[in-house]
Amino acid sequence: MAAAASTANPNALTTPVNKTAHEFDKAILDATLTRRFFFTPAFEIYGASLLANILDAWRKHYIIEEDMLELDTTIMTMSEVLKTSGHVDKFADWMVKDTKTGEIFRADHIVEAVIEARLKGDKEARGVAEEVKEETEADKKKKKKKVKSVAVKLEDSVVAEYESLLAQIDNYTGPQLGEIIRKHNIVNPLTGNEFTEPVEFNLMFESNIGPTGHIKGYLRPETAQGHFVNFAKLLEFNNGRVPFASAQIGKSFRNEIAPRQGLLRVREFTMAEIEHYVDPLDKKHTRFNEVKDVKLMLLPKDVQMDGRTDLRQMTVGDAVAQGIVDNETLGYFLARTQLFLTKIGIDPTRLRCRQHMANEMAHYAADCWDFEIQSSYGWIECVGCADRSAYDLTVHSVRTKQPLRVQQTLDQPRTVEKLEVVTDPKAFGIKFKKDATSIRETLTGMDKERLQCVKDELEKNQSSIVKCADGRSHEITSDLVKINAVTVTEHIREFTPNVIEPSFGIGRILYSLLEHSYWAREQDKARVVLSLPPLVAPIKCLIVTISQDPELRALIHEISRKLRKLGVASRVDDSGASIGKKYARNDELGTPFGCTVDFASIKNGTLTLRERDSTAQLIGPIDDVIATVDELVKGSITWEDASSRLQSYSGVQDVE
Amino acid sequence: MAAAASTANPNALTTPVNKTAHEFDKAILDATLTRRFFFTPAFEIYGASLLANILDAWRKHYIIEEDMLELDTTIMTMSEVLKTSGHVDKFADWMVKDTKTGEIFRADHIVEAVIEARLKGDKEARGVAEEVKEETEADKKKKKKKVKSVAVKLEDSVVAEYESLLAQIDNYTGPQLGEIIRKHNIVNPLTGNEFTEPVEFNLMFESNIGPTGHIKGYLRPETAQGHFVNFAKLLEFNNGRVPFASAQIGKSFRNEIAPRQGLLRVREFTMAEIEHYVDPLDKKHTRFNEVKDVKLMLLPKDVQMDGRTDLRQMTVGDAVAQGIVDNETLGYFLARTQLFLTKIGIDPTRLRCRQHMANEMAHYAADCWDFEIQSSYGWIECVGCADRSAYDLTVHSVRTKQPLRVQQTLDQPRTVEKLEVVTDPKAFGIKFKKDATSIRETLTGMDKERLQCVKDELEKNQSSIVKCADGRSHEITSDLVKINAVTVTEHIREFTPNVIEPSFGIGRILYSLLEHSYWAREQDKARVVLSLPPLVAPIKCLIVTISQDPELRALIHEISRKLRKLGVASRVDDSGASIGKKYARNDELGTPFGCTVDFASIKNGTLTLRERDSTAQLIGPIDDVIATVDELVKGSITWEDASSRLQSYSGVQDVE
Repeated sequence: MAAAASTANPNALTTPVNKTAHEFDKAILDATLTRRFFFTPAFEIYGASLLANILDAWRKHYIIEEDMLELDTTIMTMSEVLKTSGHVDKFADWMVKDTKTGEIFRADHIVEAVIEARLKGDKEARGVAEEVKEETEADKKKKKKKVKSVAVKLEDSVVAEYESLLAQIDNYTGPQLGEIIRKHNIVNPLTGNEFTEPVEFNLMFESNIGPTGHIKGYLRPETAQGHFVNFAKLLEFNNGRVPFASAQIGKSFRNEIAPRQGLLRVREFTMAEIEHYVDPLDKKHTRFNEVKDVKLMLLPKDVQMDGRTDLRQMTVGDAVAQGIVDNETLGYFLARTQLFLTKIGIDPTRLRCRQHMANEMAHYAADCWDFEIQSSYGWIECVGCADRSAYDLTVHSVRTKQPLRVQQTLDQPRTVEKLEVVTDPKAFGIKFKKDATSIRETLTGMDKERLQCVKDELEKNQSSIVKCADGRSHEITSDLVKINAVTVTEHIREFTPNVIEPSFGIGRILYSLLEHSYWAREQDKARVVLSLPPLVAPIKCLIVTISQDPELRALIHEISRKLRKLGVASRVDDSGASIGKKYARNDELGTPFGCTVDFASIKNGTLTLRERDSTAQLIGPIDDVIATVDELVKGSITWEDASSRLQSYSGVQDVE
Repeated sequence: MAAAASTANPNALTTPVNKTAHEFDKAILDATLTRRFFFTPAFEIYGASLLANILDAWRKHYIIEEDMLELDTTIMTMSEVLKTSGHVDKFADWMVKDTKTGEIFRADHIVEAVIEARLKGDKEARGVAEEVKEETEADKKKKKKKVKSVAVKLEDSVVAEYESLLAQIDNYTGPQLGEIIRKHNIVNPLTGNEFTEPVEFNLMFESNIGPTGHIKGYLRPETAQGHFVNFAKLLEFNNGRVPFASAQIGKSFRNEIAPRQGLLRVREFTMAEIEHYVDPLDKKHTRFNEVKDVKLMLLPKDVQMDGRTDLRQMTVGDAVAQGIVDNETLGYFLARTQLFLTKIGIDPTRLRCRQHMANEMAHYAADCWDFEIQSSYGWIECVGCADRSAYDLTVHSVRTKQPLRVQQTLDQPRTVEKLEVVTDPKAFGIKFKKDATSIRETLTGMDKERLQCVKDELEKNQSSIVKCADGRSHEITSDLVKINAVTVTEHIREFTPNVIEPSFGIGRILYSLLEHSYWAREQDKARVVLSLPPLVAPIKCLIVTISQDPELRALIHEISRKLRKLGVASRVDDSGASIGKKYARNDELGTPFGCTVDFASIKNGTLTLRERDSTAQLIGPIDDVIATVDELVKGSITWEDASSRLQSYSGVQDVE
């Protein structure tokens, strides 16, 4: 894609730097991130600043560039809303307790960990070297509590049973997990005590709103519901037309049973969510052409169903044309997300789009792709892009009795075959009482295909089962309900928009970015560098002097003032440390540029400019260097452009 | 102040516009704000976007410009932290319930409303016209539930008692309010039912963290505590030296008993807080000189104590020199805040700095000023600037037993007279048991003046009372504690930094800004304009065409693409509405500029540019106009500059 190529990292280098001289070392990276104030255990200082910069880039990339409607809805959410969305009933994990100590575990995690340890023990007993398996979908899941293996040989049939069990670990209900725990004598590996039966634990934080104690609220588990409850206004704002999108950045909360794993599973996290509303019969996107050549690394569902994980690189244009990605709008967001993630510095070779398999996806979803980013935690889901069909707007519409539909005036009136629901109001009311309205609305709200099924059943069996929005089912009979085929002339087409939802877990993206940015200088493994792009780096420019001379010190503060005025976040280091040490400290922080004041600055009015990754230096008049830094940071020129503007410099002060 | 003048509203006009042709009409403003999607009842679309822009301006003005350390601490806070800060025990309002209906009221609000209604009824009975009193501090408080007055004459002594009661309404405890309710037969004016005794209601939202139900957490009521618990790391980050500042933007929560009043009293709100840490003996600020000429409208405490509210305009330099503002650092933040508020569009004539009176201020605070902004709600506190002394760091240090002190190596060792606390460890331990350590730490943590008082008391009365950080008091006696004057040579000076805290209620600022920006065209009261500065306006530029001609429509999308590329948030209006209507709609949204494409755009390659407030128009080559818009929005040129670059234009299409 031409546009993408021209906006590539402005910090691109002429001479390549060897960033892979040393193996990835997570311990060093973690120590660096903690020591240099990125996070521990929550984000701090540089982490907060990096987060703010990523969100700023996100807002420009999506909200401004795509003209989205930005929302700022509340975190504390009335229980009614989350009852409607299904979170109150279904947003839960199964947990078990140690019957004696009361220690709590996630049921699926502890079963998985114990069974894996037994299989490992079996291999040890058989003297089989650990096989190098290709990574499967089960593997990629975040690592659970480690359980020590003991070398005990198992029956072959037991091994087979364990392996099949692990492959399906995500599919078990709580009672099934309880059965597995009993059948396989799974106990707490730390104490040897038995577990309780699995019980459901809702992952939402609950609180009371106001002083009465009667109004229940939850901290939102996602920002999406705030969009849906405001849909009627959003639609009005957009003059009653689709497509359009709303976007929201904000904190969400999940009361995780055991939030381990650094920044990947935390109780409070920043999300950025887009809800794009489209006509279900027209999911084309007017700007699809601009992104059709963006290349994605795809892991389609059929490949996974074959038990393989090999990626297919293809353009989003081809993926949509071949029906691998369901529609243009979904494809458009996949492409734009690929561009966003690589723009902020995610390594494209460690980024893939994995399609949900049929059994993974919610029943209402038309298609769903996760952007997974590879890090030391494996392939982690960081962005989900789902076509959620009309599900969300339908449940809210049924609950609030507010029609959330688009009315489109047809150019030509059209004659359509429709199915009409006719009930005997009195008999129907007597039979179903307070549920009568809800059943009638469920029937009239059905799409034609579903209604045809009900009609067929009524004709065949004289009865059919209707499931209402509250989850309860009712039997209707042909004496109470008739469904008639009628022909009507329509001047207006009415439809419930479908929702295509790209949902970003910003903390996970941020952590992955830090791993991808991290490397060590070829000559010294301890010399850590974070190659953050200028766009997101917390500090854009370091300003130092080679001596504590008062005239030089005055000059660096003058330069700092000028950069501040341009809005370039810079930092003066006027400590007594050596220049080399100062550079090294800022390489660790990901500061892309450094300006050094020396005696020539006083004599000739020059300033040197250093690039972080290459440590290359340029020299020029002070104001030219400042202007160059400004343009480098804003991304309007590359380091190569800067090199043609300023002179190359090989000073003595860079003692590296 | 020269710097301030040159950065004044870049949208300044050559020809003044009459913005006061119509009286302020809150009903029209509210209708406009709701209709045009600013808020209702939470922020929406334009409100969210305006909020994002204000926060972006805040981040640049404070965090980047002042090189502050940005934090992002959690909203869900362990109860321990808020116990230490005093919020668990003291962050509460008194409430009463209607004994029959159970309806809940804030005790002080309902007493005030009923007494005010009785006084009003008395005046009606006496036939006294409502006096036009000068606004007092009591008046400015947000209006409570309105209670209807009944014309009943009161005894003169009762009137006097009621008036004295109202003047002190903020000072009563819950039991005192209960006494007043009983004494004056205050009942629920809506039902005639009696009230329950006042009970305390803690204003924090409470929840459980994790699945055990044993770990209590609260949603933070302010972001400040997140700074203090991280202070040790912040200090380390700053190489152990003060001054420096940390800053945090985020949501805070208060479970208000009755959140009325639009956006001014809500349960969930965005705060931006700065904690600036200084040497208690040196509260100078290195950049004070840059702001010393900034003029403030001050309402000092002595003026208020005289029952007056007349403002004194003076420079911050004079205010500090005359000791009206306690110190340079506090003065520096007052000046910078004045600059920030006026930069985003707050009317400086409706902005004042009100000093807290002695009885209003926390006992530990050295000085405190509120920026109050005048709106239809009266003078509302929007930013508090307090010198909180060493209080916050001391309570956290005592609780966590972690020293939060700065060690400063002295250039010259110095001989100092100190007071040394000597206790008889055994007898002291037997007497105070588990409180012994806390009492000893409280004594050793006292400053010299305080300790001298204790010494004097011990010598005079053989006993003294010590109040510990947990709020409990203990009597110490001269047989257990000796305080001796000693002379020591110090090489290191150790001190607990003082905290100067500017704390911003962003929602209140945003609402006030909307009121200050609002006016109506002289020729038509219904033609509402929001004069938002380009810096914060949700949309910077409207792009329209005078006809639906396909060539013109293609051109506006081309212009939109170019503006997007420059990062200028623009909006195309290609609806069938008239140009005048389109302009009017965007005047309501505060969109400062508009570009209009007409047939001359095709023929001559020109574009016209309209300024919102004056409706003045300029014309020039398309790319020149686009570049001009970019500079106007970024604030590097004023409309006057633009007018000298482009030609004046008086087209026929602007039908206003």
